[in-house]
Amino acid sequence: MKHVVIIGGGFGGLYCARALADAPVRVTLLDRRNHHLFQPLLYQVATAALNPADIAQPIRAIVRKQPNIEVLLAEAKSIDAAGRRVLLDDGNALDFDYLVVATGATHSYFGHDEWEAMAPGLKTVEDAIEIRKRILSAFEEAESARDAKVQREWLTFVVVGGGPTGVELAGAISEVAFHALTRDFRRIDPRQARVLLLEGTPHLLGAYPDVLQQKARKQLGQLGVQVHTEARVTGIDDSGVTVHFKSGEERITARTVLWAAGVAASPLARSLGVPLDRAGRVLVTPTLNAPGFEHVFVIGDLAAVKQENGQLVPGVAPAAMQEGRYAAQAIVDLVHEKPIFAHPFSYLDKGSLATIGRKKAVADLPGHVRLSGLIAWLAWLFIHIFFLIGFRNRILVIIEWAWQYLSFKRGSRLITGPPVAHAEAHTEVGIPPARAEQTSTISRPN
Amino acid sequence: MKHVVIIGGGFGGLYCARALADAPVRVTLLDRRNHHLFQPLLYQVATAALNPADIAQPIRAIVRKQPNIEVLLAEAKSIDAAGRRVLLDDGNALDFDYLVVATGATHSYFGHDEWEAMAPGLKTVEDAIEIRKRILSAFEEAESARDAKVQREWLTFVVVGGGPTGVELAGAISEVAFHALTRDFRRIDPRQARVLLLEGTPHLLGAYPDVLQQKARKQLGQLGVQVHTEARVTGIDDSGVTVHFKSGEERITARTVLWAAGVAASPLARSLGVPLDRAGRVLVTPTLNAPGFEHVFVIGDLAAVKQENGQLVPGVAPAAMQEGRYAAQAIVDLVHEKPIFAHPFSYLDKGSLATIGRKKAVADLPGHVRLSGLIAWLAWLFIHIFFLIGFRNRILVIIEWAWQYLSFKRGSRLITGPPVAHAEAHTEVGIPPARAEQTSTISRPN
Repeated sequence: MKHVVIIGGGFGGLYCARALADAPVRVTLLDRRNHHLFQPLLYQVATAALNPADIAQPIRAIVRKQPNIEVLLAEAKSIDAAGRRVLLDDGNALDFDYLVVATGATHSYFGHDEWEAMAPGLKTVEDAIEIRKRILSAFEEAESARDAKVQREWLTFVVVGGGPTGVELAGAISEVAFHALTRDFRRIDPRQARVLLLEGTPHLLGAYPDVLQQKARKQLGQLGVQVHTEARVTGIDDSGVTVHFKSGEERITARTVLWAAGVAASPLARSLGVPLDRAGRVLVTPTLNAPGFEHVFVIGDLAAVKQENGQLVPGVAPAAMQEGRYAAQAIVDLVHEKPIFAHPFSYLDKGSLATIGRKKAVADLPGHVRLSGLIAWLAWLFIHIFFLIGFRNRILVIIEWAWQYLSFKRGSRLITGPPVAHAEAHTEVGIPPARAEQTSTISRPN
Repeated sequence: MKHVVIIGGGFGGLYCARALADAPVRVTLLDRRNHHLFQPLLYQVATAALNPADIAQPIRAIVRKQPNIEVLLAEAKSIDAAGRRVLLDDGNALDFDYLVVATGATHSYFGHDEWEAMAPGLKTVEDAIEIRKRILSAFEEAESARDAKVQREWLTFVVVGGGPTGVELAGAISEVAFHALTRDFRRIDPRQARVLLLEGTPHLLGAYPDVLQQKARKQLGQLGVQVHTEARVTGIDDSGVTVHFKSGEERITARTVLWAAGVAASPLARSLGVPLDRAGRVLVTPTLNAPGFEHVFVIGDLAAVKQENGQLVPGVAPAAMQEGRYAAQAIVDLVHEKPIFAHPFSYLDKGSLATIGRKKAVADLPGHVRLSGLIAWLAWLFIHIFFLIGFRNRILVIIEWAWQYLSFKRGSRLITGPPVAHAEAHTEVGIPPARAEQTSTISRPN
């Protein structure tokens, strides 16, 4: 029986594996983590609304009823496409007849990898727990700070990047500050928090039509988020960010900076030895093959897939799912020695949704249907619950959301892991003027 | 207004703080973690049954409606009892009029601190996540191991210590292996797992009557746990444990060893400069005072409290709660300049419960009522749900338990954090005889 190796248990890899359930092949699904992650809700873990286990399921449990699938917890180090072999981090190798590469993307700091420690991004469960810890600890530090200026720094949150993740994060942090924590502290009022969303281009949610971009900006404003477009971050350090505005460079002091600005394809793509685009994605053929290798498919965020209109298929979950199913069908065709070139992959755009906060969202649906506010939010709610894998998760997420909706509280407000360094929180009163100036918080005309 | 400082937000400290809600005092509740932990259910997080957030609540959220309580996230470094001052890790100090010390206990390795890395104990949320990771990773390693012997080593789990925590852990690991994972793997059958429970004394659950000890042992046997009493661990390393049986010393090879054998009082007690017992607990007066300091109370697992019958009050949650409430009342008396010596603390024993697994538990209730099996398990279930702090947690825990009960699945099977070292999992086939002998798994007459 032919052996199909799938690298990556995200939306692309998992949907491909499931589509091969009844195919006459043996499948090995490889991932370096034991769980499939429902990434669209990851920001809710980062903002203490959901538990990690609500949005993550063991891959083994998802495919347990498919006897032809074997799950392997390991990391692929490189691919020998011509030799039909994947090299693993433990020194072992996996031979394949067909390969599906679906390792997705990771953060990109545009050449400033040193920013990562100060401004974590949001891709994994660990990232989400780290960000949750930083957000909650910031309020704790503010409460125990003796100096009003230090307090203000801890109550300033900067989100870099105005795409869907940045918008969701900024909106959710605002809700935490303005609703969930209001009565928890004695010395600070969490409602004094400032949440800034910085976007380098002139547009929030660049992929959405203009009218929805405006709506999103307005809804963020209602939540108390200060949105700055054409604000390019040029420096990040322990005490804040340096931002290049049209009006010149300015300094924003903040103790919590989160990165939602750029992604780059997983480095595994390089070992294929085929042309990549600037973001490191594989420029696949119309049948999603790595050029020159009919038996190697690249799908999801790792693939740059050109549509008929010349644009790239967006890096969203539904696209990865469709590509996964397509690759599965193509492999079945190849096994049966049918040509696959007759029907190239075609992306069916079912629309885009981005949520901003309680009863606030935007939806760009086919046929120029554009929704915002409550109705878009309800659509977002139902679609995300519907696609959550696992019956149990769905029920738990509904309960968590209902609880939050009714109580305005967030249920998962745990700070875990080693405590944050206290060192900087205790700057004594009386800072020399030079430093005070350097760290003054931003105030500029809108 | 008099200032009461409470160190520790566990059962003792928290119940003391709540009992001071209407008292004419100002309270500062200090903890190095932001959450109160419902420790009796911690082993359920360690065995993937519950989420951390199900059994942990932010301390701030619990006391938010009590305006006279301020919560401080910080660690107490030392206590100047005479000078009425607590020194914090950040260099600040807290002055108090009355102090309640409730920092509990931590693991004790009986002088073998080097065992901690190999055999983690279970006291914090982080411990539980680490243990969960080790248990789940062990099955993954077994699945990818090429050598049958290495596979067997990964499928051997040793729990050291036959008190309630050890019994609960061993029972739960057995249930994970024999029920939750049965269909998830292709190369191994998780039911081949061996779970060993080692207890140094002749008795499991030493604090329980003989008849219940026997019942517990029988129920553990039904779950597949191999119980060894009079089995004293004399060595722990990467590949297993060395055990001193009555019949001599033997070696048990196992990749997962968990520690539930000993606790020692928090080291903060030492700075009080008062007599401690062998486990480091403060030998408090009948009014729970640190001897010589009428304004300093020591409660919970940190206190050695002698009962009228000469025995110590057990280190269980209900005792800590009662002591917390007593200390609060004593402080109110002192504020009103009433003598507190008229009514010393007296522990009301409401009975003990230990759970073993699905429909398996033992209960030792007042009036020589001794239950085991289903009825004890139901009592355990209801009492634990009843005392879980927070309405939301109760509902979620009920749902998680109902789901598990009906499906035999465990919902929170996440491996998070950096991956475990693979190095040892890939020992090639063909181990030299000397080593093979050294690592042979135990086989001894019962």
